[in-house]
Amino acid sequence: MDRIKYIIDENEMPDKWYNILADLPTPLAPPLNPLTKEPIDPKDLEPIFPKELIKQELTTQRYIKIPEEIREIYKIWRPAPLYRAKRLEEKLKTPAHIYYKNEGVSPPGSHKPNTSVAQTYYNMKEGTERITTETGAGQWGSALSFACNYFDIECKVYMVTSSFYQKPYRKSLINLWGGKVVPSPSPDTQFGRKVLEELPDTTGSLGIAIGEAVEDAALNENTKYALGSVLNHVMLHQTIIGLECQEQMKMAEEYPDIVIGCCGGGSNLAGISFPFMKEKIDGTQDPRIIAVEPSACPTLNKGKYEYDYGDTGKMTPLLKMYSLGYDFVPPAIHAGGLRYHGCAPTVSALVAEGLMEATTYHQQEVFEAGVLFARTEGIAPAPESTHAIKCAIDEALKCKVTGEEKTILFNLSGHGHFDMTSYDKYFNGELSNE
Amino acid sequence: MDRIKYIIDENEMPDKWYNILADLPTPLAPPLNPLTKEPIDPKDLEPIFPKELIKQELTTQRYIKIPEEIREIYKIWRPAPLYRAKRLEEKLKTPAHIYYKNEGVSPPGSHKPNTSVAQTYYNMKEGTERITTETGAGQWGSALSFACNYFDIECKVYMVTSSFYQKPYRKSLINLWGGKVVPSPSPDTQFGRKVLEELPDTTGSLGIAIGEAVEDAALNENTKYALGSVLNHVMLHQTIIGLECQEQMKMAEEYPDIVIGCCGGGSNLAGISFPFMKEKIDGTQDPRIIAVEPSACPTLNKGKYEYDYGDTGKMTPLLKMYSLGYDFVPPAIHAGGLRYHGCAPTVSALVAEGLMEATTYHQQEVFEAGVLFARTEGIAPAPESTHAIKCAIDEALKCKVTGEEKTILFNLSGHGHFDMTSYDKYFNGELSNE
Repeated sequence: MDRIKYIIDENEMPDKWYNILADLPTPLAPPLNPLTKEPIDPKDLEPIFPKELIKQELTTQRYIKIPEEIREIYKIWRPAPLYRAKRLEEKLKTPAHIYYKNEGVSPPGSHKPNTSVAQTYYNMKEGTERITTETGAGQWGSALSFACNYFDIECKVYMVTSSFYQKPYRKSLINLWGGKVVPSPSPDTQFGRKVLEELPDTTGSLGIAIGEAVEDAALNENTKYALGSVLNHVMLHQTIIGLECQEQMKMAEEYPDIVIGCCGGGSNLAGISFPFMKEKIDGTQDPRIIAVEPSACPTLNKGKYEYDYGDTGKMTPLLKMYSLGYDFVPPAIHAGGLRYHGCAPTVSALVAEGLMEATTYHQQEVFEAGVLFARTEGIAPAPESTHAIKCAIDEALKCKVTGEEKTILFNLSGHGHFDMTSYDKYFNGELSNE
Repeated sequence: MDRIKYIIDENEMPDKWYNILADLPTPLAPPLNPLTKEPIDPKDLEPIFPKELIKQELTTQRYIKIPEEIREIYKIWRPAPLYRAKRLEEKLKTPAHIYYKNEGVSPPGSHKPNTSVAQTYYNMKEGTERITTETGAGQWGSALSFACNYFDIECKVYMVTSSFYQKPYRKSLINLWGGKVVPSPSPDTQFGRKVLEELPDTTGSLGIAIGEAVEDAALNENTKYALGSVLNHVMLHQTIIGLECQEQMKMAEEYPDIVIGCCGGGSNLAGISFPFMKEKIDGTQDPRIIAVEPSACPTLNKGKYEYDYGDTGKMTPLLKMYSLGYDFVPPAIHAGGLRYHGCAPTVSALVAEGLMEATTYHQQEVFEAGVLFARTEGIAPAPESTHAIKCAIDEALKCKVTGEEKTILFNLSGHGHFDMTSYDKYFNGELSNE
């Protein structure tokens, strides 16, 4: 059997992130102030974000140097291995070559710490002592707690009440790394208290949790807010995934014909694909790049490309993006990380320009793909990642029909160790087919 | 900061296991037939084990070649990384150099697949179509299911009823890889039916589960039984851990003064330490080797070194080993993998000869060490592994007093992703201090 893992030495890790804003064919439409509907003044963001991240949000500089302190923490799990999915290929009897990047090797188990470590570092540099955030299933909350621990910053996570009680293990991880987590709505904020008074039985929502986390950051000293997806600086930090993949594909002496990522807010997809997108835009290569959404939340596939709020509470700036509407509530699918009504403005722009494709799959078929993956490649994938797996399998099966030996690369954004109840439901035939 | 990970290329993985039986100062006392009390005839084992494993159980050949098919599956996660615990050292302000081998990177999350893959392979070669086993918390059961999946062998796991319902996620993993798992006692065996009739409300025990798994293997065609610890061939397969560590310590240009592993049946400890023990026995090096047990189950520390049964049902051969008595029932500590009344005959012999030390820790202090480890090294350790962590920390703190720059190596036998309720109890102050 050929080599199955491509590993870069920790001292050869990329030393810069790639910024797609330098190469977008059309500049991004600016974020608008939710009250005035005028382009936002960067200074308006300073109560909740550190200056360096606001700068990274807006800059069109192509590469940003990764500070040494961030690289030192990345080294705990990075460079992440690239795998050749030989056993999956053999099972499918496809001539395609399938590769996947395993971002599940990070301690929090997903790609999220690529940005949580960076955001926390810049906050530390500017004297932030507390960071607040919201979390749904807890991937982002645990990644932020992991990062804050390293920079001695207090971490406060507002976790949607229903998840807080139904998915307790990422809450445990938040505690393990020293973060604080409360069910949202909570009595800790004015907004939370108001919601609790009006709707004492609510199980919460991401919109409510964002409201609480932002209020906490805005009203408390030395406290900032952190967001785990959607924004440009988040996409930027995630590009280390694709930059590593470029080196690893060179080691394998291949170039991907197709690059695939699942897509909620867009960060793991942006992470793996933007460095390849650069080469597509500048014409040196022509990979297809595919965003995979759940049928239950088909933002890029069925949403409108227009200005919309990032949250249900209409408190965030208006962003030009594909959206199903700020008040859209997707069904409770198990891929909690893909249940977002909008999508990153950068990813949205690339889809709108026709540079990126988008497709959808139902819950049942992606779990089926996840089980096939676990039984060939050995690794239990996160429900989010199974969307990318399903798409990679479908593309590989097309190659079986045409006889083409295409090279397919997808992002295994995380492991499924904290999602075992979802697999149980699949095996018990209790999974709704949203 | 210095390098923190030492990684061997998959094509440089060791191609043989090391057999300590070749170098024990005194030959092992033979296993005895439980009925006749005479040394067992290898043929007596053939109804439940394949011939090659019986051969490996008894041979004194120093090195056994690892078949290529096994190495190909090992490559999914091996060679496992060796880490320098720089952040832990800094936190402790110790001059000691602390290294740990991360066996938690395997898909089932522990060192167990090192032997499950090997055992399943040899079974496949001899035509076995089904393998049965017992499991407590599920680490071994999931590792066996993982392995059987690759060799198209049906896997049937008898899981202690209390764990089946209280620790459901490793059960989910067993299903994910295609294995079958039932709560034990079960109506699937004569022994299980008998127990259910006599004790309809029992929550089961490992002894009962062993009884069911062995009966199933003995009475059904093309069915064998697999054991995840204690036996010589299991220790043999685990030595790939220490053999890799020897290469990695060379990369780090160090040699361990102390090698540490937690100890239940003894397999992860044997795995990391036996290759170093060889050099201790032949006099080329003189590392201290320490077995760490829970105070609640201090087999090596307080047991008797004599012939005893491996199970509560007195069905297994009698093994000369340290034992707390075949009917000893340890308290329900969270390190389920360390709750065994006996210990591997090889490990026992080395302790009896004074070549290996043994120590114990209470549950509260090992979890405290586990949290410190998670907050410095980032990784959430399994409750079993926290015993080795605690011992490594204590040895490093002794160096702080003496000023010695000792090199300490321990085995991080697994991750704690499926043990988060134990951490919750620790944080909630609900952990009993057994």
